[in-house]
Amino acid sequence: MDDLRKILQELKAGTIDVEHALELVQGSSRLDYATLDLDRKKRTGFPEVVYAAGKSAEQLVGIFARLREHQELVLATRVSDEQAEAVQKHWPDVRYEREGRLLISTKSPLKPVREGYVAIVAAGTSDWPVAQEAAWTVRCFGSEARVIADVGVAGIHRLFQRLDEIRAAAVIVCIAGMEGALASVLAGLVDKPVIAVPTSVGYGANFGGMAALLSMLNSCANGVAVVNIDNGFGAGYLAGMIHRQTASS
Amino acid sequence: MDDLRKILQELKAGTIDVEHALELVQGSSRLDYATLDLDRKKRTGFPEVVYAAGKSAEQLVGIFARLREHQELVLATRVSDEQAEAVQKHWPDVRYEREGRLLISTKSPLKPVREGYVAIVAAGTSDWPVAQEAAWTVRCFGSEARVIADVGVAGIHRLFQRLDEIRAAAVIVCIAGMEGALASVLAGLVDKPVIAVPTSVGYGANFGGMAALLSMLNSCANGVAVVNIDNGFGAGYLAGMIHRQTASS
Amino acid sequence: MDDLRKILQELKAGTIDVEHALELVQGSSRLDYATLDLDRKKRTGFPEVVYAAGKSAEQLVGIFARLREHQELVLATRVSDEQAEAVQKHWPDVRYEREGRLLISTKSPLKPVREGYVAIVAAGTSDWPVAQEAAWTVRCFGSEARVIADVGVAGIHRLFQRLDEIRAAAVIVCIAGMEGALASVLAGLVDKPVIAVPTSVGYGANFGGMAALLSMLNSCANGVAVVNIDNGFGAGYLAGMIHRQTASS
Amino acid sequence: MDDLRKILQELKAGTIDVEHALELVQGSSRLDYATLDLDRKKRTGFPEVVYAAGKSAEQLVGIFARLREHQELVLATRVSDEQAEAVQKHWPDVRYEREGRLLISTKSPLKPVREGYVAIVAAGTSDWPVAQEAAWTVRCFGSEARVIADVGVAGIHRLFQRLDEIRAAAVIVCIAGMEGALASVLAGLVDKPVIAVPTSVGYGANFGGMAALLSMLNSCANGVAVVNIDNGFGAGYLAGMIHRQTASS
Amino acid sequence: MDDLRKILQELKAGTIDVEHALELVQGSSRLDYATLDLDRKKRTGFPEVVYAAGKSAEQLVGIFARLREHQELVLATRVSDEQAEAVQKHWPDVRYEREGRLLISTKSPLKPVREGYVAIVAAGTSDWPVAQEAAWTVRCFGSEARVIADVGVAGIHRLFQRLDEIRAAAVIVCIAGMEGALASVLAGLVDKPVIAVPTSVGYGANFGGMAALLSMLNSCANGVAVVNIDNGFGAGYLAGMIHRQTASS
Amino acid sequence: MDDLRKILQELKAGTIDVEHALELVQGSSRLDYATLDLDRKKRTGFPEVVYAAGKSAEQLVGIFARLREHQELVLATRVSDEQAEAVQKHWPDVRYEREGRLLISTKSPLKPVREGYVAIVAAGTSDWPVAQEAAWTVRCFGSEARVIADVGVAGIHRLFQRLDEIRAAAVIVCIAGMEGALASVLAGLVDKPVIAVPTSVGYGANFGGMAALLSMLNSCANGVAVVNIDNGFGAGYLAGMIHRQTASS
Amino acid sequence: MDDLRKILQELKAGTIDVEHALELVQGSSRLDYATLDLDRKKRTGFPEVVYAAGKSAEQLVGIFARLREHQELVLATRVSDEQAEAVQKHWPDVRYEREGRLLISTKSPLKPVREGYVAIVAAGTSDWPVAQEAAWTVRCFGSEARVIADVGVAGIHRLFQRLDEIRAAAVIVCIAGMEGALASVLAGLVDKPVIAVPTSVGYGANFGGMAALLSMLNSCANGVAVVNIDNGFGAGYLAGMIHRQTASS
Amino acid sequence: MDDLRKILQELKAGTIDVEHALELVQGSSRLDYATLDLDRKKRTGFPEVVYAAGKSAEQLVGIFARLREHQELVLATRVSDEQAEAVQKHWPDVRYEREGRLLISTKSPLKPVREGYVAIVAAGTSDWPVAQEAAWTVRCFGSEARVIADVGVAGIHRLFQRLDEIRAAAVIVCIAGMEGALASVLAGLVDKPVIAVPTSVGYGANFGGMAALLSMLNSCANGVAVVNIDNGFGAGYLAGMIHRQTASS
Repeated sequence: MDDLRKILQELKAGTIDVEHALELVQGSSRLDYATLDLDRKKRTGFPEVVYAAGKSAEQLVGIFARLREHQELVLATRVSDEQAEAVQKHWPDVRYEREGRLLISTKSPLKPVREGYVAIVAAGTSDWPVAQEAAWTVRCFGSEARVIADVGVAGIHRLFQRLDEIRAAAVIVCIAGMEGALASVLAGLVDKPVIAVPTSVGYGANFGGMAALLSMLNSCANGVAVVNIDNGFGAGYLAGMIHRQTASS
Repeated sequence: MDDLRKILQELKAGTIDVEHALELVQGSSRLDYATLDLDRKKRTGFPEVVYAAGKSAEQLVGIFARLREHQELVLATRVSDEQAEAVQKHWPDVRYEREGRLLISTKSPLKPVREGYVAIVAAGTSDWPVAQEAAWTVRCFGSEARVIADVGVAGIHRLFQRLDEIRAAAVIVCIAGMEGALASVLAGLVDKPVIAVPTSVGYGANFGGMAALLSMLNSCANGVAVVNIDNGFGAGYLAGMIHRQTASS
Repeated sequence: MDDLRKILQELKAGTIDVEHALELVQGSSRLDYATLDLDRKKRTGFPEVVYAAGKSAEQLVGIFARLREHQELVLATRVSDEQAEAVQKHWPDVRYEREGRLLISTKSPLKPVREGYVAIVAAGTSDWPVAQEAAWTVRCFGSEARVIADVGVAGIHRLFQRLDEIRAAAVIVCIAGMEGALASVLAGLVDKPVIAVPTSVGYGANFGGMAALLSMLNSCANGVAVVNIDNGFGAGYLAGMIHRQTASS
Repeated sequence: MDDLRKILQELKAGTIDVEHALELVQGSSRLDYATLDLDRKKRTGFPEVVYAAGKSAEQLVGIFARLREHQELVLATRVSDEQAEAVQKHWPDVRYEREGRLLISTKSPLKPVREGYVAIVAAGTSDWPVAQEAAWTVRCFGSEARVIADVGVAGIHRLFQRLDEIRAAAVIVCIAGMEGALASVLAGLVDKPVIAVPTSVGYGANFGGMAALLSMLNSCANGVAVVNIDNGFGAGYLAGMIHRQTASS
Repeated sequence: MDDLRKILQELKAGTIDVEHALELVQGSSRLDYATLDLDRKKRTGFPEVVYAAGKSAEQLVGIFARLREHQELVLATRVSDEQAEAVQKHWPDVRYEREGRLLISTKSPLKPVREGYVAIVAAGTSDWPVAQEAAWTVRCFGSEARVIADVGVAGIHRLFQRLDEIRAAAVIVCIAGMEGALASVLAGLVDKPVIAVPTSVGYGANFGGMAALLSMLNSCANGVAVVNIDNGFGAGYLAGMIHRQTASS
Repeated sequence: MDDLRKILQELKAGTIDVEHALELVQGSSRLDYATLDLDRKKRTGFPEVVYAAGKSAEQLVGIFARLREHQELVLATRVSDEQAEAVQKHWPDVRYEREGRLLISTKSPLKPVREGYVAIVAAGTSDWPVAQEAAWTVRCFGSEARVIADVGVAGIHRLFQRLDEIRAAAVIVCIAGMEGALASVLAGLVDKPVIAVPTSVGYGANFGGMAALLSMLNSCANGVAVVNIDNGFGAGYLAGMIHRQTASS
Repeated sequence: MDDLRKILQELKAGTIDVEHALELVQGSSRLDYATLDLDRKKRTGFPEVVYAAGKSAEQLVGIFARLREHQELVLATRVSDEQAEAVQKHWPDVRYEREGRLLISTKSPLKPVREGYVAIVAAGTSDWPVAQEAAWTVRCFGSEARVIADVGVAGIHRLFQRLDEIRAAAVIVCIAGMEGALASVLAGLVDKPVIAVPTSVGYGANFGGMAALLSMLNSCANGVAVVNIDNGFGAGYLAGMIHRQTASS
Repeated sequence: MDDLRKILQELKAGTIDVEHALELVQGSSRLDYATLDLDRKKRTGFPEVVYAAGKSAEQLVGIFARLREHQELVLATRVSDEQAEAVQKHWPDVRYEREGRLLISTKSPLKPVREGYVAIVAAGTSDWPVAQEAAWTVRCFGSEARVIADVGVAGIHRLFQRLDEIRAAAVIVCIAGMEGALASVLAGLVDKPVIAVPTSVGYGANFGGMAALLSMLNSCANGVAVVNIDNGFGAGYLAGMIHRQTASS
């Protein structure tokens, strides 16, 4: 209600035009090839995020232009170098996290706004890009992210050495390719939710991440849920959401 | 019968030669590497369409040459830039819809010949190329196609905002990748046939469109049938056929 | 609007009580284990259909009790003998089509209300139960259904003998197991929409109907869309919907 | 440290014998066919849970006997009628939740110990048993569970009618078979974590729940993580863990 | 026995050296990376064929050098342009059938040595390369191969127009991608063995030829056996073998 | 032509009635649930065979009644004990080969009508039922079938001991479950066509015969083609057809 | 050579008859439905083992009768209760290990003949039957087998408590269902070969053991090889073979 | 214990600094993106091996730098040309085995340190790179590796010619693509462990090595265990481990 009143007042005052007001009231903004969801943050607590894969550079630029008008934060995932270049040509302030394939446009620098942190635990160095995608997504939520890399089960003492740091986290993101065993081992050792990300690291009978995916879905330890293969963003998102809820309640 | 008489009269009159008459009587025209189906339109109401993938540019040109003699409309799908260039070099009037990967050769401009329209509803901007393939196929049928882009279920109010326009359509093509949920939601809201097209948009456990395909085949809402992954052409074809039938009966 | 007025008038007049009126206004009716969709017919032109598999006999009876109050027609699919017995014990007038595994409860006998018919073309005798499911669903829509059985491609002259009857239909449902080739052959011979139903008839590398499913999705002939394996109901539903639309426009 | 001191004091005092003390110090108890994890609750906040499938009734009874000595709560999942009968013959106080296939042995009645609740949202009535499994697991955690049944997307207004109740929950468990679209739709409407459970409800190309599983893993809406097919227990466990963490911080 | 005597006589006469004699007696010739099967023709009626994929150009040249010493005919399949160039640089007389990706080295020109022919029936123009692979393999067997292209079931009259020619063949190779329906239709019309080759022509749910493969394995018509996807060579081989046997018995 | 004249003469003479004549002219006979292909033998050299699975006992009896009128030989595959009993109750002379699950109705005893034989080579004793299905199908073709059982590659000298007998056959059917290696080994040793039948013998990662199926399709030895899993009938059919062709030419 | 001399001497002496001598010389014994491999032990060090699944009780009895004549040890796997009863009716001394589904016929009691032991490490109690199959197979090899049950990674301290005992083994068999993580963890902790057996324990997305199978094939720790799902026999066999080799060299 | 004392003495003596001592005590060394397992050799008898795929060249160089400090042997697998170049630029003494895609850094030349050898038996020349990967891994273990190439079952006498050499090995690695039949045949002929490596050699229905993988898992011959597709390293590792154990016991 207050939102609506505010929109109408701004229209009255001439701060925004009729077209803009209409979009705000409807909670969406239309381009030929896109219908942007301006209402997303109100419903879910996080603004619309752009999935860049499969979009032309022109379309991505068009979407950024519109979203930057309406959102404090514009986040794009699965960005190619070519797309990043096109966006940064228009807005040099947009940050390109190349390892995590993210574009991040913010009005103010990202920094933690609440106590505690999310632990991003990765099994191997080859899982690093997915860990980066998760970590930066967590940071976009205003939470601290700590990446604990290369502590897979082949040398399990490495995990035990970091266990205190992991157990002290509010939420745990566990990233592993190959057989994905880390998720089960970890979940058996902690009393925090474990969001597991299977990765496509491996070859042959890992069938593009299927092995780790099935492994994590069938974890013998409890307290694990799984996101799509290589979906660091999705895990970071859910972890950020849980952390926000935990800290604020 | 009349067709046959007409062919023989033309032969008699010298308008066509024996070889040509023979092809017309047989309803097919033979090249080394192809046997063109000249009878297709009579049987199915739509002339033979060329599947360009896997054909050499020379073969495609050879097929266009022959089909243009016999058909008002020559449509080719899954066309590469290289193939398009080869065809347009011979016949600059042939239209290349690059986004939809179609070549369209017509004797007169495409325009709607009946009331009503087909709604092409796409879940995301990345589904745009498939939507274009569907839309132009509908237009080849002489129906109007309206593309309603990026109204996927992550922001479902966008769908409701366009619902009147969708419900007013004669047939609905629903295009979605990732989990393909749009098809079920849409089918639960309308009293028109929904032709669903799963797309390969996504990654990891979408397994090249399998996720959306299975999703659409298992729709809990009724009135949905499914075509192949990324097969905008097939959906546009069926939609055009239903619309034609609806309008003419 | 008129609907609402009518509900309130009936409430005022005492024909219905407050609880009933509430349900009608909300378009749904709640049981512990079910939320019935009373608004379905208004949105989609066909009332809610009950998927019986996985429900206890008690739950099914409870749902029938409630739906019979609100709907002219109550249709349940995938019914077991045990479930059918439980329902018929309460309401002996409910019809159990055992081959098609359907329960049909109607206030007046099913009969065609429009011109034309739907052709249900089945490849083999083993596809008969799926054909029955499709045929009775079509009849529930008020359309005539003609079953043309056992005209698969192993003896393709059988198909040609029935072709006139098939081509005269308004819509065609094509049912086939094993390799499902009938759908492609049929679609190449007609100018009507073909709704294809793969069946699980076969063994070994048919993988429960997967062979026919993939076959139909990849049809080289156009104008085919596919429903789930063994889903005679879904195909009959879509065919009925198209026929209704065709005849009424 | 205190734990250890307490064990030694009890041994000294003669309350427990050496064997028992040894088990407590080691955090495990050994049977021929089982090694019970007595330390589980200390590490993860929840005692060891018994997976009953694949165990003989004798083994299950043996495990119950031992665990009841050490744990306030003994929970067994995937229990058959025959197994339940064997356990209840020994301990009539053990509760058998037949729909959810759970055996629950508690020293005091289950009741909520914290504010708020977990919403268990199920798409169809056939998902009821999985919803029961999830709900009772949540209750074992000391949280309230509210089941909202049969609000799948085929009649999406049913979901909107319950949306306030769902949004007020601390965590959401979303249970759906067939195409599993409910998870995406729900996640787009709430600002709480959604734990999605694909079910095997459906047939044909649902491939035993694969369709819903892939669908949920590929959700276009964010904030969703997935557990194994039909794994109501796993979702209830994670939801209970998040709720506990949320409420206590 | 006579073979052995002949080898020893040649050794005695000095026509061959000890090493060569040893190889002939053992029926194999050894390179570091290969063990050539010189005995193959005696056992199976056809000399060893080289599978070029996965071999370096150097290895292929080395193998050709050795085999050309021992065999009238050297055939290599799955040859790349780069490999072909390397081989032809050494032996310009080797024929490179680029469409079928074959290298053929013969001492005398290939020509039919028996009555009758093998019909190579292909569903679409995109199946042409596989048809060429099959045809040239048949010719290597000394049989005539007739390619009948693009007579798929979408325009089934094209098949009937060629039926006499097909029925007069000794053996039939049937090549089809997409849904592979041609194999079933054809087998229902002829009294000759049908060797079916699924091709990877298609996209999406054809899963690299899986759709046609399953289709052909589940043919409702009898008298069909199947070879690997795109394996024109294998089908041509078996057809040649059957034709040879037929004609010679 | 002569066929037609003969039918008309019989009609004239009163030997057959109009209905019967009509069926003969059309080459098909219609029941409610079946359309029998009376023309099959003329086209393919073998009369229609009944696939019993999925048919009710009543339907099977109805089909036998009609086919026995028209065919010398009536063969049904995939017959259950219950179906066999129902058929034999009507016609005690029908032979039930229980191991191979076949019903065979003949006017005169089956016996070889040509020189030579088909070798049915099975890898293990568990493949025996499939071998029986193949052998009896071959016998229905008028060829001799010799079963060579349990000569799988785990003890490969058993195969070599029978090699002369196998090599003397006109055609070879090779039946194997588990890894199906026998087909490749055999094909490398003979100069006759090998029709390979993968069986579902095995467990776990044989996935119902998939392991043997893929193995046989990828045979490194040439001259092998494959039929469906457990399809002894299909292999026997093709082998019989090749043998007939070989012997008669 | 000595073997042959011994056979001939026995024949000469009349201890065996001609038929028997023939079998011994050939190394095989023929029944209608089986060809027993009498030479197996000489080649591989272990006599032929009978795979009982898919054999009739009569066939199994026939095979036992013949093998007991020739072998000290007759082992049958995958035995049903019905088969066991039939065999034990003839030979009450045959031992039926019901949990492991094995029949064991020995001339003298099984006991270890060499130093050291094989550790059979199982993740859960539900893996017990597979562990029994492995253990008894190891014992048939003359090695000691120690079963260490229920030490899966959900409570990893249980594994560490048994680690000394596991590390002291000569070979390790690791049995696990669900996600099969135990294999990787174990292999990272030991310097002995790990033979991993995935089991079908689990449900849903374990797809009959596929999850554990893929997991084990993709182990991030080295020194692991995998056998078929639920194949306790195969793992026990290989472990016994390695132990024998280790101890004897 | 002695290890620890030695570390402390070195620290005391100033040979190593505190940081280094800390790493040695903990058995791990930390980089941003990696946690190196310095304790690996003590636990498993072989130092940490680097999986190069998915790592940046910079990361790989960083890891090499650290590992070369601590390990006699540094082995990296799945190395690209670009990565190899980067590493060799820093340390020209590092050996790049390009065919096997390995980088090997040793302080002294690799040479056998024990009696006997590992036989690497490969089915075809296209399996050569995998054979090289296996052979060099075996050599890193200090064992002799003999590669026996191209003895697949299509010409099985080639295998028999090398059988003595294979049977004399301590362990056998069997490498095969396509249908992978060599593993079964080989295992039936030897009394040594067979470690089978399926390769991705082949096309179409080999599905990237799946055909050979399933084939090997379902071997009808005993004494076979399987590693991942194309995993020559894994097989070489296990073979080396078994050989070491055999020779030293």
